[in-house]
Amino acid sequence: MLPLSSTGPGGTSLLTALFTSTSAVCVTGLVVVDTSTHWSAFGEGVILVLIQLGGLGIMTFASLLGLLVWRRLGLRSRLTAAAETKAVGLGDVRSVVRGVVITSLVFEAITAALLAARFALGYDEPWDRAAYLGLFHAVSAFNNAGFALWSDSLTPFVTDPYICLPVAFAVIAGGLGFPVWLELHKHVRQPRRWSMHTQMTLAATAGLLVAGAVFVTANEWSNPGTLGALDPPGRLLAGFFHGVMPRTAGFNSVDYGAMRDGTLLATEILMFIGGGSAGTAGGIKVTTFVLLFLVIWAEVRGDRDVEAFERRIGDRTIRQALTIALLGVAAVVASTLVLLEVSEQTTEAVLFEAVSAFATVGLSTGITADLPASGQLVLTALMFLGRLGPITLVSALALRERPTLHRLPEGRPIIG
Amino acid sequence: MLPLSSTGPGGTSLLTALFTSTSAVCVTGLVVVDTSTHWSAFGEGVILVLIQLGGLGIMTFASLLGLLVWRRLGLRSRLTAAAETKAVGLGDVRSVVRGVVITSLVFEAITAALLAARFALGYDEPWDRAAYLGLFHAVSAFNNAGFALWSDSLTPFVTDPYICLPVAFAVIAGGLGFPVWLELHKHVRQPRRWSMHTQMTLAATAGLLVAGAVFVTANEWSNPGTLGALDPPGRLLAGFFHGVMPRTAGFNSVDYGAMRDGTLLATEILMFIGGGSAGTAGGIKVTTFVLLFLVIWAEVRGDRDVEAFERRIGDRTIRQALTIALLGVAAVVASTLVLLEVSEQTTEAVLFEAVSAFATVGLSTGITADLPASGQLVLTALMFLGRLGPITLVSALALRERPTLHRLPEGRPIIG
Ligand SMILES: [K+]
Ligand SMILES: [K+]
Repeated sequence: MLPLSSTGPGGTSLLTALFTSTSAVCVTGLVVVDTSTHWSAFGEGVILVLIQLGGLGIMTFASLLGLLVWRRLGLRSRLTAAAETKAVGLGDVRSVVRGVVITSLVFEAITAALLAARFALGYDEPWDRAAYLGLFHAVSAFNNAGFALWSDSLTPFVTDPYICLPVAFAVIAGGLGFPVWLELHKHVRQPRRWSMHTQMTLAATAGLLVAGAVFVTANEWSNPGTLGALDPPGRLLAGFFHGVMPRTAGFNSVDYGAMRDGTLLATEILMFIGGGSAGTAGGIKVTTFVLLFLVIWAEVRGDRDVEAFERRIGDRTIRQALTIALLGVAAVVASTLVLLEVSEQTTEAVLFEAVSAFATVGLSTGITADLPASGQLVLTALMFLGRLGPITLVSALALRERPTLHRLPEGRPIIG
Repeated sequence: MLPLSSTGPGGTSLLTALFTSTSAVCVTGLVVVDTSTHWSAFGEGVILVLIQLGGLGIMTFASLLGLLVWRRLGLRSRLTAAAETKAVGLGDVRSVVRGVVITSLVFEAITAALLAARFALGYDEPWDRAAYLGLFHAVSAFNNAGFALWSDSLTPFVTDPYICLPVAFAVIAGGLGFPVWLELHKHVRQPRRWSMHTQMTLAATAGLLVAGAVFVTANEWSNPGTLGALDPPGRLLAGFFHGVMPRTAGFNSVDYGAMRDGTLLATEILMFIGGGSAGTAGGIKVTTFVLLFLVIWAEVRGDRDVEAFERRIGDRTIRQALTIALLGVAAVVASTLVLLEVSEQTTEAVLFEAVSAFATVGLSTGITADLPASGQLVLTALMFLGRLGPITLVSALALRERPTLHRLPEGRPIIG
């Protein structure tokens, strides 16, 4: 980033610029300098553009890859109305880009309007400043980026539903993913025509939102450092907010450093699972998680096939889900080991940071800026890997599916 | 346990007796009271008998279940020479019990003799006391129980290879599992005739031992609280010892409370993986771990089939391995959440304790006795679950395999 991006006289180190740019373009939201004080208006603008480009880019890229996989496998695509071919042409790209841009702008505009009105009317901000704040946080929310223009994220608004609810709404909308919105747009009144992907994403998102909100609310209810300091309606709002944010927006309205250990562990699980495919959320994605869950269910029932929503899930799809999840675990564990070597932080804090970076969440117990340069580089790499890894890996795996000419006899090791 | 089991005037609480009995019979080795000072000679004898019965029982039970599964599925069984039928008869039971008992006694006798000689000659113990010490620790080692008659486990012998190496040898032998020993006994000079199970177990055990020993040695080399206090040969011995012990014996010769965080994390991974099937080790078993690894390898290569050792692995076997591993993760995470709620310990210490109990390892950072009664009950349940869960679950899953009459059309959600 250019020197004029920062406010102070010292400028910005190359590492800080690299870390912040990666965090913005990967819509993660981890920061090593305070966004509100370190960057000039120009620097904030650069971050905003990077977030928007990062969000649009990932949605377009993932949607096109999904389309390519579906085409190649001869499955009916619902992403475009084009005739079925095995290639993805320029027309598809235009159509997807247009859809992604329109979807993003609509949600961001609604959210920005709601937030701007509240900043102007509730906090006496001048209209131009209120509009800027509304726009910045709407883009940051819909793209699940989690960058905020206050040093302590959205903590000043912990009990204000007119700020927290629009932000949560935009976060959830962005996290569902473009294919889901496209299908809802086309067949909103005909749930029977929704694809398995849409049904699975909606059901899993609802389940994880409820589970996360209930757990956080219950576990932090009497913690004076977090929800315990609020009145009961405020506790409910903040509990809901922090059930939504790990998936994978990364705003916070109470201090994660003061959260109970159980809440941090539950948050790590929610972060790792993440949101919907081909959206702005990170993690291994809810569909991957649900597939693994369905395998267990099918095994316990003794079923030959893994089934859901009146469809059978192929063994290759299951193996791909397993591969994504295990490589995700491996990336997080390996990064945690390296971070433990290069820093003096506890396993708890470092693991939280690694999951947060991998799932492009951006929540932190506050140690990011204290990590040595090598640690910040590990997180930078992890953000890239977490952002692009699952999407490209699963597409590569799906496209490499090929039949074999001969099969070996089956062997059966004893397991368990 | 009876009052005469303990040395002190206060006797033993019901919870302590329950915890210790479970720990012994599940060959875990977690303790809430000091084995060497709390229990009388009679109490020690009871613990020794429980360990031996627990070890013999689990090996017999798991071997018979493996036999039943193989028979039912029409796979060639190598556990007995009996004719192929689909039922497991009394003859099979006798044959397996005899084999398990003989295997155990041979290894325990060798180890006990080596240890007793060292205690008598190297530490001037009277011969009867040396024989008792040798027997107790040989049984505890072969059965991967990890109970020791010194307050700080085997710390007094950290640099003595004549104690550490026989113990490590017995631990590895017990952890390979009865089916492997039976096959090695029959076809020791013909590796080509070894089953896939034996080849996979031996290869994975060797790999994990080397990886564990190298990582622990390198990571603790300069830690003054652990290996750093020793001379270089002592460091190598202690590093090797602590690469072996997480899988899943649970003796220690340096203080785990002083280990670096990275070592604890690596130890947790080794503990969770555990040892061979139908042996005295715990965890999800090395074959389960290898199968998951092979799935990733096959996916990255784009192979239709998961293959190893010139055999194809069936999709049902893969799903069963996945089920065991994920339910193991779920049990550990759920227990960790509960332990965090009921105690004031850190996530790090509690997670280590939960993995140690689930995988029946018995290593601890030292918090076991400080946990409240509810926490100790959680660990007790987790030890039982970890000891019996994987074996019975995988057998139940394998025996429930049944064909379905109709198959649904395939659906393909976007993952990753
Ligand atoms: K984020
Ligand atoms: K043990």
